[in-house]
Amino acid sequence: MRLKLTIAYDGRPFSGWGKQPDGNTVQDHLEKAVSEVAKQDVRVHGSGRTDAGVHAAGQVAHFDAPDGMSMNPFNWVPAVNTKLPATIRAIACEEVTADFHARFSAVSKTYTYDLCLAPVLPPLKAGLAWHLPRQLDPETMERALELVHGEHDFRAFAAMRGNETDETSYVRVIENAELQTTDDGYRIIFTGNGFLYKMARLLTGSVVYAAQGRLRLDDLTSLLDQPADLPHGRAPFCAPSDGLVLDHVVYP
Amino acid sequence: MRLKLTIAYDGRPFSGWGKQPDGNTVQDHLEKAVSEVAKQDVRVHGSGRTDAGVHAAGQVAHFDAPDGMSMNPFNWVPAVNTKLPATIRAIACEEVTADFHARFSAVSKTYTYDLCLAPVLPPLKAGLAWHLPRQLDPETMERALELVHGEHDFRAFAAMRGNETDETSYVRVIENAELQTTDDGYRIIFTGNGFLYKMARLLTGSVVYAAQGRLRLDDLTSLLDQPADLPHGRAPFCAPSDGLVLDHVVYP
Repeated sequence: MRLKLTIAYDGRPFSGWGKQPDGNTVQDHLEKAVSEVAKQDVRVHGSGRTDAGVHAAGQVAHFDAPDGMSMNPFNWVPAVNTKLPATIRAIACEEVTADFHARFSAVSKTYTYDLCLAPVLPPLKAGLAWHLPRQLDPETMERALELVHGEHDFRAFAAMRGNETDETSYVRVIENAELQTTDDGYRIIFTGNGFLYKMARLLTGSVVYAAQGRLRLDDLTSLLDQPADLPHGRAPFCAPSDGLVLDHVVYP
Repeated sequence: MRLKLTIAYDGRPFSGWGKQPDGNTVQDHLEKAVSEVAKQDVRVHGSGRTDAGVHAAGQVAHFDAPDGMSMNPFNWVPAVNTKLPATIRAIACEEVTADFHARFSAVSKTYTYDLCLAPVLPPLKAGLAWHLPRQLDPETMERALELVHGEHDFRAFAAMRGNETDETSYVRVIENAELQTTDDGYRIIFTGNGFLYKMARLLTGSVVYAAQGRLRLDDLTSLLDQPADLPHGRAPFCAPSDGLVLDHVVYP
């Protein structure tokens, strides 16, 4: 039986999502917890990686429960949670068809990014927001987000990742790029059909640089549509992991 | 020079606001930090205590800078912050008149209390919300909060505190008792001219009990107006410290 598990985590204690030799990633902890419940080794596949320090409200993973294991999908939630550290929680579990894949079946993902503009970062927001203790021009941010909206070749907004840099295509569609006002700053919301490595943070860094007058909107436009086979520019700044949350993943 | 300091803190690592022999209270840390900056012992007076685990976005304290110390009030903020643990932050400092007293000059305080109704408490809300994974009736909560509004003898909503239980008066005015909807629950907002020991948590516990059908609104009404000289009932439940934040204190 293939199961779809929705997971929330505080990214601070972990070395990101993807498995690593040190074993301290969300995927490592989750595979260990699911395997303990299943009483055999089980591989867990996520919708995509999140970096060290990036949080999730609704990451999605799938795994195959061992044949003959008849536990109700709903009961996996408390069973897995007893084996997980408190900073990772399974929040939902449901049966899916055998062709469901957390990564390849996903049709869109939504990330939120919190900016705190208070003069001093409140302790309850430490690790949960990018602290920018100066005014940002909201109109420029809105215009930068309008430019980001739509289909683009985002190769300027893809960080290198060892030998995995060669994506088949850097074209992605950002269906929504929205600015919300919060009690002490802004929340940027990105929904897209896919995000390249560090893309949400590189987009956020660019939007903030535009609002600070450090990146012209014309230059942002140029960065957003790079000719595939020419040397290209790069996004000027990668926003820190603190403010980023993988909010949810949508499936058909 | 008397200074008014506004402070935010994550209540989790501390044994509350008020000084204690173990030295691990917010007031202890703050007096130590201010005294280090002043290079002499300085007493810091808060607007009131918060319990262990209760947070603050805008606690207020006053202290007297040593004679002859000419530091600009604004510069106390970064100076004190270099001496404080990261979970306590000075966020503002201004000069006040010599008759200003953080506790006795306060005209109102606002507390917020967060209730999380999600089936599983998200890790980013751990320690920051009361987890009630069942539906609550919002209409009953609204009606309970209407009853709480106004001037009452709140002796049923005052916890004992060693030998400090004898308040001169238990009459307080709740100027605002409001319910807001959040992404996964509710936020209760109380503004009042004073709060007895654990009063915000005892009021929250009662409102939640009413919404769960465990306290009748008629009984809440009776608890809210106790005859001063007769044996009296007590609030049925004290909500956990997790969800409570001292949001701000208002002065004339």
